[in-house]
Amino acid sequence: MRNIKLVLEYEGTNYCGWQTQPNLPTVQGTIENALTLLTKKTIKIVGAGRTDTGVHAKGQVANFQTESEIPIIAFQKGLNTILPNDIVVLAADEVAADFHARFSATSRQYRYTILNRAYRSALLWRTCHFYPKVFDVDSIDTICKSILGKWDFSSFQKTGSDRKNPICKVIDAKCWKDDVFVHIEIEADSFLRGMVRAIVGTALKCTKDVSGNVDKAYNQFHQIMNAKDRSVAGASAPANGLTLVDVKYND
Amino acid sequence: MRNIKLVLEYEGTNYCGWQTQPNLPTVQGTIENALTLLTKKTIKIVGAGRTDTGVHAKGQVANFQTESEIPIIAFQKGLNTILPNDIVVLAADEVAADFHARFSATSRQYRYTILNRAYRSALLWRTCHFYPKVFDVDSIDTICKSILGKWDFSSFQKTGSDRKNPICKVIDAKCWKDDVFVHIEIEADSFLRGMVRAIVGTALKCTKDVSGNVDKAYNQFHQIMNAKDRSVAGASAPANGLTLVDVKYND
Repeated sequence: MRNIKLVLEYEGTNYCGWQTQPNLPTVQGTIENALTLLTKKTIKIVGAGRTDTGVHAKGQVANFQTESEIPIIAFQKGLNTILPNDIVVLAADEVAADFHARFSATSRQYRYTILNRAYRSALLWRTCHFYPKVFDVDSIDTICKSILGKWDFSSFQKTGSDRKNPICKVIDAKCWKDDVFVHIEIEADSFLRGMVRAIVGTALKCTKDVSGNVDKAYNQFHQIMNAKDRSVAGASAPANGLTLVDVKYND
Repeated sequence: MRNIKLVLEYEGTNYCGWQTQPNLPTVQGTIENALTLLTKKTIKIVGAGRTDTGVHAKGQVANFQTESEIPIIAFQKGLNTILPNDIVVLAADEVAADFHARFSATSRQYRYTILNRAYRSALLWRTCHFYPKVFDVDSIDTICKSILGKWDFSSFQKTGSDRKNPICKVIDAKCWKDDVFVHIEIEADSFLRGMVRAIVGTALKCTKDVSGNVDKAYNQFHQIMNAKDRSVAGASAPANGLTLVDVKYND
């Protein structure tokens, strides 16, 4: 049995998230259907991150088992011919039998992108969240730096999630401005469901309320985090700004 | 009667070009419908460049006459509320009665963008032409520089066009690489129908045939241009790579 690893890019706009759901368009389901067409067998794939409806990926990783003897390059080319324009296989590799896209991953990196100008964009609306107000990049960067390490992120977990352990270890987090774009990037060993969008939405709320006062924004954010209660945090930032950028593995 | 100038950004993917056509979605038609909703009157708008099906704009300019007394900022905000995600008014201004978006324009600038990497992009496919082969940027830049000034561009005019005068004055033209993107930008006083895409397609054909030999590519391109015959030129580069970037006026 071969174990095949895929690196994937997709635009999530037209999908009900990563995970296969009956009668709904999903990224996983679309790729599984393409693999079935290619190999004539039913194939189940595992993704490193189960991105939500409307969330994109530049470096999602998935793997699947197959007995097919199709050469690895033909897997990539064949899939890219079958897959729609908004999903592409960036790389395909044969990997060790014990490689598991989700459980072997040591970290995931998400980027949230905000278009910070006076008017929305007709060319970028699918992949940026439009936010025309003054943006306090310094305060949000301070908040990002302050969540490095292990924390209980219960306040930023989607209501109704089944995950028992709310502790995640943040490896890197930062916010920076590049022309009319503001990026917020967070790398962690794992993420709770909806965590990045809840953090971004809460950070925006905290900095908006106390514009320019870094200490106040920081304190408000940490009060919310310490409460371990989703209902005190800010609304989730919209899905269109979020992209799973990278997934890392040992070696 | 007020004369109002709009600067527009749009993604052309879902439109049958700029120009209003019965029963087909067009950019002009969509904006005219939005203006009718806003002012309760039938309004005809004039665009500086009649972009083809699938071609985008970052700086299209249009104008229209109206007796409406809606404040100018409300025109912009109102239109942006009514218009779909893929069309936006970047600026609205009240201008002199003799301003005409098309006839007053002194130049238009188009940019053709190519994604030059091994695999297509799921995030950028709408606005870049995917071209995985080795790209001879130097030869194409040489060809660009060689078309500065006034030339007969008949070889690059869409068959069946009704324009009598095939002479255009190229003000600036260049090709450069930026990471995985190659951009070809041409500014001219006017353009024949399909001209940029025909030039790009022909330049690609010439440089591909003689890879790396700048002189040969240059000579082949100019033989084609001198023939003044569309049938000897290369196929048009696909519409998705083309964007109307800017339109210039005196003052």
